[in-house]
Amino acid sequence: MEINGLPLIVIAMEAEATPVRDLLGLEGVGSPIDDTLNARIWSSERIHLVVNGMDSRFGIDSIGTIPAALTTFAAVKSSKPGLVISAGTCGGFVRNGGHIGEVIIADRCVFHDHRIALPGFSEYGFGEFPLADMSEVASSLGYRLGTVTTGDSLDAPFVDLKRMDSVSAAAKDMEAAAVAWVSSELNIPFTALKVITDLVDGEEATETEFLANLQYASERLAEAIFAVVTKLHEPND
Amino acid sequence: MEINGLPLIVIAMEAEATPVRDLLGLEGVGSPIDDTLNARIWSSERIHLVVNGMDSRFGIDSIGTIPAALTTFAAVKSSKPGLVISAGTCGGFVRNGGHIGEVIIADRCVFHDHRIALPGFSEYGFGEFPLADMSEVASSLGYRLGTVTTGDSLDAPFVDLKRMDSVSAAAKDMEAAAVAWVSSELNIPFTALKVITDLVDGEEATETEFLANLQYASERLAEAIFAVVTKLHEPND
Repeated sequence: MEINGLPLIVIAMEAEATPVRDLLGLEGVGSPIDDTLNARIWSSERIHLVVNGMDSRFGIDSIGTIPAALTTFAAVKSSKPGLVISAGTCGGFVRNGGHIGEVIIADRCVFHDHRIALPGFSEYGFGEFPLADMSEVASSLGYRLGTVTTGDSLDAPFVDLKRMDSVSAAAKDMEAAAVAWVSSELNIPFTALKVITDLVDGEEATETEFLANLQYASERLAEAIFAVVTKLHEPND
Repeated sequence: MEINGLPLIVIAMEAEATPVRDLLGLEGVGSPIDDTLNARIWSSERIHLVVNGMDSRFGIDSIGTIPAALTTFAAVKSSKPGLVISAGTCGGFVRNGGHIGEVIIADRCVFHDHRIALPGFSEYGFGEFPLADMSEVASSLGYRLGTVTTGDSLDAPFVDLKRMDSVSAAAKDMEAAAVAWVSSELNIPFTALKVITDLVDGEEATETEFLANLQYASERLAEAIFAVVTKLHEPND
């Protein structure tokens, strides 16, 4: 695919971002994207990488949809990218053939926790965001295409699982659809690149599995981002 | 209370905003707050009012936490208010003495659908946002103080209801905590002013009750905003 500007990678957690910066040679502490947000951006000739930064009150990474939306909004305005990539770790699904460390690229992106049964609002809540066509990139790198579904909780109660099942979710995350929401409003092509840290329908508790595999999955994430960015910069045939 | 700048009222739906603009004498079509968002702002010598505007893809009001956060972010930057008020309709609770048309002012504001069982993240997900002390204003106007709890769904499944019960929720809405999130990051005092359209634990289906009472509750909302703004502009004793 051809993109009209550098890719902007949007990452929520510092633990996810560190191996990515190391592998992409992005040094230093980054620059602010705005005089009020804690997000920092790193830029090279090949890429922009923005990380949400710490929450001012709780001193932990600002995860979830609201900081992802604000970071994307301010970072797109400051970096004018050709493609926005929501990148990070995610939950996978045994019943969909998922395994720890697997890379998923989005070919569908929805919310699983926005249920609004008012005329005209159901579809809005679901999202069904426009996506860049990454099928050639995914196939040449051997990554799976699948549905990325977003919600603001780490767990998966029945009401959310029903939604995930209805879209045969390959990746459950906490940011992608929010990044997609903003990219769509700002007319920038969007995709999501996720690596599985834990199995939503597996036997281990999500929080235990997530923490045990965060480092491993973040290293796989760095390799996948490096590979995708290299592919995007190859001359088209 | 004393505020250092005009109040900024943040409203999600056009049906909620129309009677407010009529009563406050805010005429015309408003001004953009940003060159990319659909939100519009109206300003007078007493108040700023911002409305999220239509979703570009679905052509309905942009409700929910993400547009509320983006609108608040851009509107605070453009209007530099002394107080942000998330205003709108909400679900109430029979078991908490709520009734259709009742006005609630927030003395607590949390999310009921952000569950993140990782060390340090549970509290972050819950939110527990800082609030302006509106107790004198509420007591002089006869409005009830209570907990406003926010989520991105109109319904209330068991997993969300448990959270609402744990904070004795007086008002369930879809924006307040997102507006609070941004206000807190930008260091602007925040409150929420909500009017009940439907009863979460009542006998009618939420969507039916919401649509039947939206106009009535929005008129009560306009009166309440007018009364609160008048009170905020009274000289302090």
